[in-house]
Amino acid sequence: MTMKPKAVVLLSGGLDSATSLAAAFEEGYEPCALSFRYGQRHRAEIEAAKACASSFGVSSHLILDIDLRAIGGSALTADIDVPKGRSDDEIGAAIPITYVPARNTIFLAYAIAWAEVIEADDIFIGVNIVDYSGYPDCRPEYIGAFEKMANLATRAWSEGPRRLKIHTPFINSSKADIIRKGIELGVDYALTFSCYDPSPDDLACGSCDSCLLRRRGFEKAGVPDPTRYL
Amino acid sequence: MTMKPKAVVLLSGGLDSATSLAAAFEEGYEPCALSFRYGQRHRAEIEAAKACASSFGVSSHLILDIDLRAIGGSALTADIDVPKGRSDDEIGAAIPITYVPARNTIFLAYAIAWAEVIEADDIFIGVNIVDYSGYPDCRPEYIGAFEKMANLATRAWSEGPRRLKIHTPFINSSKADIIRKGIELGVDYALTFSCYDPSPDDLACGSCDSCLLRRRGFEKAGVPDPTRYL
Repeated sequence: MTMKPKAVVLLSGGLDSATSLAAAFEEGYEPCALSFRYGQRHRAEIEAAKACASSFGVSSHLILDIDLRAIGGSALTADIDVPKGRSDDEIGAAIPITYVPARNTIFLAYAIAWAEVIEADDIFIGVNIVDYSGYPDCRPEYIGAFEKMANLATRAWSEGPRRLKIHTPFINSSKADIIRKGIELGVDYALTFSCYDPSPDDLACGSCDSCLLRRRGFEKAGVPDPTRYL
Repeated sequence: MTMKPKAVVLLSGGLDSATSLAAAFEEGYEPCALSFRYGQRHRAEIEAAKACASSFGVSSHLILDIDLRAIGGSALTADIDVPKGRSDDEIGAAIPITYVPARNTIFLAYAIAWAEVIEADDIFIGVNIVDYSGYPDCRPEYIGAFEKMANLATRAWSEGPRRLKIHTPFINSSKADIIRKGIELGVDYALTFSCYDPSPDDLACGSCDSCLLRRRGFEKAGVPDPTRYL
């Protein structure tokens, strides 16, 4: 039996990352999931990440505690209200206050550290630039620059012949396309969690940018939305 | 009175970072120091970082707790012996086991997050490639790639006109040159700490790569070494 190559999959517990996990399996990797308790107000996503990893039989799931509240600067990591009920134009107009400074850079930095230690040359991240909130660290030019930097940063990849590759299977997909692909790959979206500002009993608010993009994705995909909304 | 621009200074408590702090002051910045308890075996460096920051009257010193032991892969963050008494040829031959996977990438990722929040456009890091241990994340090509990536990653710098700059004032300096410059700038090297593997009462071992490079630096600079060795 040939061993599958390992891949580190950044798994937030949201819809895109859960589908990335499924895509990593489909592409023949052994996914090793990486999640972060970073002080986010929507901690329910960590339980969702665990459930997603478990549903795919992922044997290695590392959850790191990092305190981005010590840095703040975002509605997700400081006492700033999460915007609700915004129109598509508003969502697309500017980088919103839910942007967390350098979040994907921090997550990917840990991902390359772990990948180096477990001898994985591949990282999956579920960024996309179609139905998204305008975060700069989701764009292809950013991902390309990170990959280039990472290949210079590390013992594993700076001396060759191995190279690190960052996979963004859904960077150009609409939310509806991601959902359709995920259904095909067996993702149970009832296990995923997208809301930025859930109720104390972890019901989705239904009106933050992330809920709005998710709801519309299910509608456009023609797939019933299993989310438990307030 | 004109406000000085802020700069985030990565401050490990070692000789190079302490001198970078002094250089940031000299260049007219208000340094905001950033240190990490990352699970390193040489935790004494955190107390050294505090003492250095305090001696320069730094008003903002953020110390983050991050657990790189959960990732491991280095003699500094796992139960692996620190090499001792190596020759210059041995030190220069290969990336040693004290290399911590992606450490500078993780540190710089937090630095850009914090810089964005406190509205600093400058980061100082005390890397150098002359008297060093061969770590890939100390080289100019790495720093350049990180800077380019960071300018794409963030709200503050991706939309212009502001740009992030990473300053490496000593990247091409010998340890002796750094020490001479630091003395000129008022660095008290008795406050700094370089040893990777100190005794339980925080005396420097004198024979790890970091101690050897430090000792030789003081010798070549013709400056008394204030380090408390075993």
